[in-house]
Amino acid sequence: MEKVRGQLKWIFQTKNEVLLQASVGSGAMESAIVNCFSAGDKVIAVKSGKFGERWADQAKAYGLQVLDLDVPWGEAVKVDDVENLLAANKDIKGVLCQACETSTGVYHPVEDLGKLVAKYSGCILLIDAITALGITEIKTDQWNLDVVITGSQKALMLPPGLSMISFSEKAMKHSLVAKLPRYYFDVKESLKAQGKNQTFFTPAISLIQGLRVSLGLMEEETLPKLFARHRKLAGATRAGVKAMGLELFSQSPSDSITAVVAPSELDGEKIVKHLQDKYNFTIIGGQDHLKGKIFRLGHMGYCGDFDVLGMIAALEMTLKDLGFKNELGQGVAAATKVLHGH
Amino acid sequence: MEKVRGQLKWIFQTKNEVLLQASVGSGAMESAIVNCFSAGDKVIAVKSGKFGERWADQAKAYGLQVLDLDVPWGEAVKVDDVENLLAANKDIKGVLCQACETSTGVYHPVEDLGKLVAKYSGCILLIDAITALGITEIKTDQWNLDVVITGSQKALMLPPGLSMISFSEKAMKHSLVAKLPRYYFDVKESLKAQGKNQTFFTPAISLIQGLRVSLGLMEEETLPKLFARHRKLAGATRAGVKAMGLELFSQSPSDSITAVVAPSELDGEKIVKHLQDKYNFTIIGGQDHLKGKIFRLGHMGYCGDFDVLGMIAALEMTLKDLGFKNELGQGVAAATKVLHGH
Repeated sequence: MEKVRGQLKWIFQTKNEVLLQASVGSGAMESAIVNCFSAGDKVIAVKSGKFGERWADQAKAYGLQVLDLDVPWGEAVKVDDVENLLAANKDIKGVLCQACETSTGVYHPVEDLGKLVAKYSGCILLIDAITALGITEIKTDQWNLDVVITGSQKALMLPPGLSMISFSEKAMKHSLVAKLPRYYFDVKESLKAQGKNQTFFTPAISLIQGLRVSLGLMEEETLPKLFARHRKLAGATRAGVKAMGLELFSQSPSDSITAVVAPSELDGEKIVKHLQDKYNFTIIGGQDHLKGKIFRLGHMGYCGDFDVLGMIAALEMTLKDLGFKNELGQGVAAATKVLHGH
Repeated sequence: MEKVRGQLKWIFQTKNEVLLQASVGSGAMESAIVNCFSAGDKVIAVKSGKFGERWADQAKAYGLQVLDLDVPWGEAVKVDDVENLLAANKDIKGVLCQACETSTGVYHPVEDLGKLVAKYSGCILLIDAITALGITEIKTDQWNLDVVITGSQKALMLPPGLSMISFSEKAMKHSLVAKLPRYYFDVKESLKAQGKNQTFFTPAISLIQGLRVSLGLMEEETLPKLFARHRKLAGATRAGVKAMGLELFSQSPSDSITAVVAPSELDGEKIVKHLQDKYNFTIIGGQDHLKGKIFRLGHMGYCGDFDVLGMIAALEMTLKDLGFKNELGQGVAAATKVLHGH
């Protein structure tokens, strides 16, 4: 525990304790809400996809007054839009946003949001960084991210079932007056226990043991190289996809997951199924109204140059198999150039 | 998922869906509370140890009006005492109790509580069966146990991080009017997802995969043999301990865990440490005011005759090492007779 506590502070880039919870990421989102707010509190939820909607739904389930900031799926939130809402509603207590919106592959301007929200003494910024932390730079303290959450099964390369959450001093001040009932996710008791290298409840031991190992691998790689690797993998994926004649879905592509518009003549779900069945590559389709319209390629965590190259090749083959007019080899050629650093 | 869903109904002895949650057992207790009650609802909490206190604390954290039914640690609850409370308070909505109170090794009269609470149409019985289900008979439906919870790391022989919970029709009626806020543990959404062999959120996949295997082992053994094995292991442990001249702490000993009074001249914590350090057996001490006063021997889950015999032998050796006036061999002789069926 002592080792893992230090490693978590390192990857979160925070001096504050990072709490371990036996839950998946949505449990960490719940923890963020119940520890920071009271029923009736006004918050902004940035809704630019499935997980932004989850923030909003979860906050509403707890009786918060949620100002929905609807952003077209595929686009990043405009900081000005958040600023306007904050300026018009002096009583806003929190801004809920993703770092990477997994459903659309969008990366939001987290650093700028941090700068903005820091100017409002009564408002905190809560960042779901489940598919961002450990993949791309998330400077929790320096960027004034008051609550940051992540889960075990993305960058941290473990099975799902363990989540992590950090609270800034400003967020802890919120927690002192937050009246929402809580027990399982109670930050005060969890901090007390973790300070003694314990957990409030039975911990998800096997995952914590694994976490020590996966964070150890990341420490060996070092943060700059870790982020550079994912930047390169994402760049190669984008180059490969575009060279096949496909279009990216995200206007602000993340380094975690690349969302691609399915060619209009093909069903995105068929592409996903064919890649799985014939080439044994697991990618994922679109959610909700994007089902069949986009597909998403992951390059998070335990993933290297030639994994991505294989995925691009299999995608080229799949498109060919399904009758798309692509010239085989264009995608891998473009990806190879990026991977080699050209 | 489909396979595991069927296996869970089998081990819970229920026709109702058993929900899988990515949490430890205390998360399942939370789920029970938030899905069944509203703030201000009156419930009885049977407090006969650490985990009874947790029920009470957790219910209070959610604003329930808790009638504490304090039972001396080491004793089982008297059904008459529950009946008197129910008769005197017609508005009681729930009775919270353990099947086995892990901190004292006590088995509560769960079947009789079920008979009692069934007579009150507005009241449900919530049973924390974390250290009972899969070890000893728990007939969820036949005994009218409205909510039954367990966790992965006891009888189910897995690492911690997965919990299971069942709701009777009567409990589901409670859930329809229950106003406590909930999202992560919401029974309605969870039921909907699980009916499609999905989970509401990312599941704790590795543990669910393991569960299919461990429940498969239990199915092969069959329920009667599973319960008979634990009954025998518990009986052998009790016989061995008594033959060494020690006293059982529990007045209603469970088949899951045997609590033993430490000899007055010895510190229970020293016994625990010595067993670990010298003989590599992990047992556990007392909690709270019982720290140093008792120690507890586990015989749940993946545990057979000669595991228990080894533990008894190591305990005899430990007592001897620490200066207790026991005659080596008395414990194992007595345990061997029970294990052989005499």
